[in-house]
Amino acid sequence: MDKLYVIKIGGNIIDDEVNLGSFLTAFTNIPGKKILIHGGGKLATRMAEKLGIEQQLVDGRRITDAETLKIVTMVYAGYINKTIVAQLQVNKCNAVGLCGADGNTILAHKRQHPVLDYGFVGDVDAVNSGLIKNLLEQNMAVVFAPVTHNQQGQLLNTNADTIAQEVAKAMSKDYEVELIYSFEKNGVLLDVNNDNTVIGKLDRKYYEELKKGDRIFAGMLPKLDNAFAALDNGVSKVIIGKAEKLNELIQGKSGTSITYE
Amino acid sequence: MDKLYVIKIGGNIIDDEVNLGSFLTAFTNIPGKKILIHGGGKLATRMAEKLGIEQQLVDGRRITDAETLKIVTMVYAGYINKTIVAQLQVNKCNAVGLCGADGNTILAHKRQHPVLDYGFVGDVDAVNSGLIKNLLEQNMAVVFAPVTHNQQGQLLNTNADTIAQEVAKAMSKDYEVELIYSFEKNGVLLDVNNDNTVIGKLDRKYYEELKKGDRIFAGMLPKLDNAFAALDNGVSKVIIGKAEKLNELIQGKSGTSITYE
Repeated sequence: MDKLYVIKIGGNIIDDEVNLGSFLTAFTNIPGKKILIHGGGKLATRMAEKLGIEQQLVDGRRITDAETLKIVTMVYAGYINKTIVAQLQVNKCNAVGLCGADGNTILAHKRQHPVLDYGFVGDVDAVNSGLIKNLLEQNMAVVFAPVTHNQQGQLLNTNADTIAQEVAKAMSKDYEVELIYSFEKNGVLLDVNNDNTVIGKLDRKYYEELKKGDRIFAGMLPKLDNAFAALDNGVSKVIIGKAEKLNELIQGKSGTSITYE
Repeated sequence: MDKLYVIKIGGNIIDDEVNLGSFLTAFTNIPGKKILIHGGGKLATRMAEKLGIEQQLVDGRRITDAETLKIVTMVYAGYINKTIVAQLQVNKCNAVGLCGADGNTILAHKRQHPVLDYGFVGDVDAVNSGLIKNLLEQNMAVVFAPVTHNQQGQLLNTNADTIAQEVAKAMSKDYEVELIYSFEKNGVLLDVNNDNTVIGKLDRKYYEELKKGDRIFAGMLPKLDNAFAALDNGVSKVIIGKAEKLNELIQGKSGTSITYE
């Protein structure tokens, strides 16, 4: 099977034009098939401020009323997505920017929560891999904005980490998928205050040991549980580290590589 | 050759949720291959007002400074494009929304003008039909936002009529293309103040006659010159009329049909 990289980048890299440019050059230089999933929360927050629309975040999730959904769709699926695609075209990396409604690629439902109304926030039900695979086979990179739909006309704001995981899982039936989560740290750290304590390799056994000894920062646990869930569902490897070091992440010279065993 | 409909809709239909819904149902019901090109100027103007960014229009063209380009990209390629795609998915019309940077489909250059600086406004250089054809052959409808790029990282605000014409011309090497321009009138009128004086059929000879007699409203002349230019470049038929009457336009029961002879 061909290798496929599914790479998620967050606001810290999107917000910085120079950093984003370097990242997209590194992304272009990855040989073979690749999918980029971007967030962009900070820009959405700034746009909401300019428009005087109050934002409410609960555990990092944006409560998404109708006006906020409009902003999210404009900023994520419009401005950020097309800016990234245009920049990749400069590098001769032919890319297509999509949201989950395009080609019916990512279906979701509005989140149901017993107490909290998240508004137009989507939880993913299915990834239809047909169009994605078709584009990859034409040697195009696919760039996903974190907006999905419910096939009843409702666009939904959806967590970019989740989209990355679901896309990676769905594509693993056709490709050997490596899923890369980039964030502001060098990787999974033994000491959350020391960026030089990166755990180079993590398998399930070691993870369980570390958890038992309370040696992993609580904030990392959902990300790591998601990583192992991805491995349980066909993904070959999950890598966590800095987007600025994309080449090193792929070569195993930076970040934390998470494998089944 | 298969038939392909290339249909341009303007702000008057996009702005009205009910009208847009009916139009998209009619669009869905067109059998076979189809491309939709949308504008959305009124929504962009409203967003600019909310953000306090002054807009300058010269002959209906938006002078596009950096902030206005951001708005145009957000509103056209983000909000309107994805709203239309999500709505088509409800109808089980599988659609993909693109701008000209996606798949490098529409290349343009920044408009050069001896006196006036239009800002980030693009004039189309080329349409790369490969991806478009590929999507059509997968029975997907393609929905274009009027944003192009110059392959040097610059997105460009581009007239939707022009995009429709250029896409129609480019696709005519593979399809029998009918290009439909929808606007607020019933068609090309003999009396601009009477919507019941639609010219049903217009060929080049009749057009020249009407022009000689000053019998066509001056504002229509650029649209009609463009229509004949499209016919000169492989398009089979151009239809001008109301988006609300899409089915009738296609059946020749409404609007003005423009053919070579």
